[in-house]
Amino acid sequence: MFESAELGHKVSKAVWKKEISALREGLLDAQLDLLTTKKCPVIILVAGVDCAGKGETVNILNEWMDPRHIETHALRDLTDEERERPRMYRYWRVLPPKGKIGIFIGTWYSRPLIDNVYGDIKNAELDQQLERILRFEKMLCDEGALVLKFWLHLSKDEQKKRLKTLEKDPSTRWRVTDTDWEHYKLYDTFRQVSERMLRTTSTPESPWTIVEGTDPRYRYLTIGKTLLAALRQRLDISEQPCHIEPIPPIMPAIDNLLILRTLDLSQKLKKSEYEEELEKYQGKLNVLTRNPDFKKLSVVVVFEGNDAAGKGGSIRRITQALDARQYRVIPIAAPTEEEQAQPYLWRFWRNVPRKSRFAIFDRSWYGRVLVERVEGYCDHADWMRAYGEINEFEEQMVRKRTVMVKFWLSIDREEQLRRFKEREKIGFKRFKITEDDWRNREKWEEYELAACDMIDRTSTEIAPWTLVEANDKNYARIKVLKTLCERLEAALGK
Amino acid sequence: MFESAELGHKVSKAVWKKEISALREGLLDAQLDLLTTKKCPVIILVAGVDCAGKGETVNILNEWMDPRHIETHALRDLTDEERERPRMYRYWRVLPPKGKIGIFIGTWYSRPLIDNVYGDIKNAELDQQLERILRFEKMLCDEGALVLKFWLHLSKDEQKKRLKTLEKDPSTRWRVTDTDWEHYKLYDTFRQVSERMLRTTSTPESPWTIVEGTDPRYRYLTIGKTLLAALRQRLDISEQPCHIEPIPPIMPAIDNLLILRTLDLSQKLKKSEYEEELEKYQGKLNVLTRNPDFKKLSVVVVFEGNDAAGKGGSIRRITQALDARQYRVIPIAAPTEEEQAQPYLWRFWRNVPRKSRFAIFDRSWYGRVLVERVEGYCDHADWMRAYGEINEFEEQMVRKRTVMVKFWLSIDREEQLRRFKEREKIGFKRFKITEDDWRNREKWEEYELAACDMIDRTSTEIAPWTLVEANDKNYARIKVLKTLCERLEAALGK
Repeated sequence: MFESAELGHKVSKAVWKKEISALREGLLDAQLDLLTTKKCPVIILVAGVDCAGKGETVNILNEWMDPRHIETHALRDLTDEERERPRMYRYWRVLPPKGKIGIFIGTWYSRPLIDNVYGDIKNAELDQQLERILRFEKMLCDEGALVLKFWLHLSKDEQKKRLKTLEKDPSTRWRVTDTDWEHYKLYDTFRQVSERMLRTTSTPESPWTIVEGTDPRYRYLTIGKTLLAALRQRLDISEQPCHIEPIPPIMPAIDNLLILRTLDLSQKLKKSEYEEELEKYQGKLNVLTRNPDFKKLSVVVVFEGNDAAGKGGSIRRITQALDARQYRVIPIAAPTEEEQAQPYLWRFWRNVPRKSRFAIFDRSWYGRVLVERVEGYCDHADWMRAYGEINEFEEQMVRKRTVMVKFWLSIDREEQLRRFKEREKIGFKRFKITEDDWRNREKWEEYELAACDMIDRTSTEIAPWTLVEANDKNYARIKVLKTLCERLEAALGK
Repeated sequence: MFESAELGHKVSKAVWKKEISALREGLLDAQLDLLTTKKCPVIILVAGVDCAGKGETVNILNEWMDPRHIETHALRDLTDEERERPRMYRYWRVLPPKGKIGIFIGTWYSRPLIDNVYGDIKNAELDQQLERILRFEKMLCDEGALVLKFWLHLSKDEQKKRLKTLEKDPSTRWRVTDTDWEHYKLYDTFRQVSERMLRTTSTPESPWTIVEGTDPRYRYLTIGKTLLAALRQRLDISEQPCHIEPIPPIMPAIDNLLILRTLDLSQKLKKSEYEEELEKYQGKLNVLTRNPDFKKLSVVVVFEGNDAAGKGGSIRRITQALDARQYRVIPIAAPTEEEQAQPYLWRFWRNVPRKSRFAIFDRSWYGRVLVERVEGYCDHADWMRAYGEINEFEEQMVRKRTVMVKFWLSIDREEQLRRFKEREKIGFKRFKITEDDWRNREKWEEYELAACDMIDRTSTEIAPWTLVEANDKNYARIKVLKTLCERLEAALGK
């Protein structure tokens, strides 16, 4: 979930200079239109890890727009007034009216997060509180409010660096408190709980936008542009026939630094090494599945990736190591008539494996947020809600001790072209290449973007994505087998 | 919440004869249309207390419609197949496809309910499971399914009678198990948990319909008509522009037995008794507010009722007993401009009282489901979601140790007319009677129906409605004071 926010996003001074004035103008105009049309209240949450620049961000927004019509609320300790009333009272009393913008820094998420990290509340109660928050935000959206939620993220090292630099400089030393260092020590716990929190509270109506906090220019530009896009969308649509507000757009990384583009696809494995490793990991896999505790588990393996990335080949290398009674390979094509008459996830639920069984999906439920999104087979609202439905689906399986292993096999355009051509030449491979493949290839960037959004929103601690550099088949197959073995070992507690 | 399902609803043989054939024909037609159009899947949940006739109801539905296109699922113990997979698997695998009807008896609600009643899971975990159910049902609705949820209710005595009669008759004795008697002993706990469950899982898209189970004819006719109305609504609307399915209609009691009509408005109190009681309870109230523990509480009193039912008078009888620094009376009229620029509940949140304070609302947030519903000031979807938002709002206050006391002051049409005329005569009372009052009077039945729905859906154990027979002002004022004292005593643990 945080992977894309640890890539070291940056915006150069030049780009900044080029973009900034247009952005500020756009925001001012939008704010004015909002004020005059009184279209809706705008609620902006700025949350995230310490030192990720929450404060500065809020200052910039006030600087860029007309602060007279922005209400900033940095709510910390409860006042007596508030302590004697229900928890949400403090937020209700300062909600912005239609036409105004309210920025919350120190939001209704802080308390549950901290209480859970410090063990004051159990997960069940955390979930209770998150569900109340969800109901609150749903009410706001139903009432027509535009709710934008930004999470500023820093990697562990980055946060440490921040704290150190702040401490060195006498003019900023005061900003680093003991609590900051205490929180730093708890970084991993915070990360884990935050992820759970973002996962359960990211809805189509008010999704979280996770922003890498390292580079200020990137931070400000991303948040500014996301805000502007959402505002304009609201202001420009003519009244909806049946008044549901549109789903706010998701903003692609403004510096074009996509996680899939950071992979080193040149990685290779010599034939000899490959054969050695293959034997090693297939053997290991086989042994693992004969572990007595394996009876308590089930395994779901998902293969997604570019066309011709070698999913089939990798799957065969897995099944070679297994007993045929132990696994099922489920190829996912267009839904059958029977499947179309059911909710989207039905065709996958029917293939949920029993204990000590593998279900290996060649393409999967992620089709909803990949091909169906790009080809427009379903509405924006449908694929947006799919992220949540999918996370919930996988969570249910994991809760039942299923090992979820998800692979994205990545190749570049040139390699794909080579393989397409090869497939057309070699007779017995020809069936593998279709019109669709060429069509999808045309939309390479769109698919790439959809895949990156998918990874950002569905790579969770309980069901992480493994990105596989697949230009070299040998390298890819071994990485797949190795990962699978590691995940199983972990699940078997070895 | 169950009040209206304990009034002894009945349908005579004559009415039954008159209605039944048309209903059956209608259902068959609707089923056929559903089948041919494949408009959506229909999911019917039949839940409720033991012996309330769940089984018979399902049989009737199968008898009335074409059973070849109905799939009935009485899911009890888990099979091995199911035990090895996530809990919802068993339901996913039997979901009806578009065009078909699936009836579930023994639903996804049974397990959480029983586990909580027997103390196997705490409330926090119950809420977790209910939220998962909510997400599941939301997904079904988002996917276009029609989800109808019926809860068959029996009063404690009624259930006992049932069990006894079943036991007497040798042909039915086998149906009464030890578990049934065990459950009967736990009736009160079941009632309490069920209420919490129905409260949190009744959504605009799939609200619960609570049906009194005592009289079979009433039971069957209510469920049959509700089903037919919902089916027709779905089948007859032309495709929505932005595909959200319509909110299913709520069915008024088919025997016109409305809870407000069961009140004995003739109840009176002699002047002398009145003055005695008045002094007694005002004194008591005053003493209670000086109890040291009162500092830990806050009190919210809500007055709703027919126009000219005497809300103001009753309020004065309360405030006379209090220190002016202790209470605020909040008269609710049409929202101000400032209030209109905020979410509906904002104007009430701003008046949530501090500890050891009274907030007395002369009309309240219930305006949403009364005047705004009847006069069409808001959409069907808006007042339907208001029930849930209101319950959530009140729950938040109660969780913060607020005593919620809600009064509905009831008078009949004749009495109202008398008071209207009187007000017009007496100069200083003339300001009290407006055009609106006469207009509302025209819509007496609609307001009555809205009030009854309101009571059914928002009278909860934590925030019950007290219905006050108010034709006689003396009687009403004493009942109000007495109830208030009792609620405070209970809260102070005396």
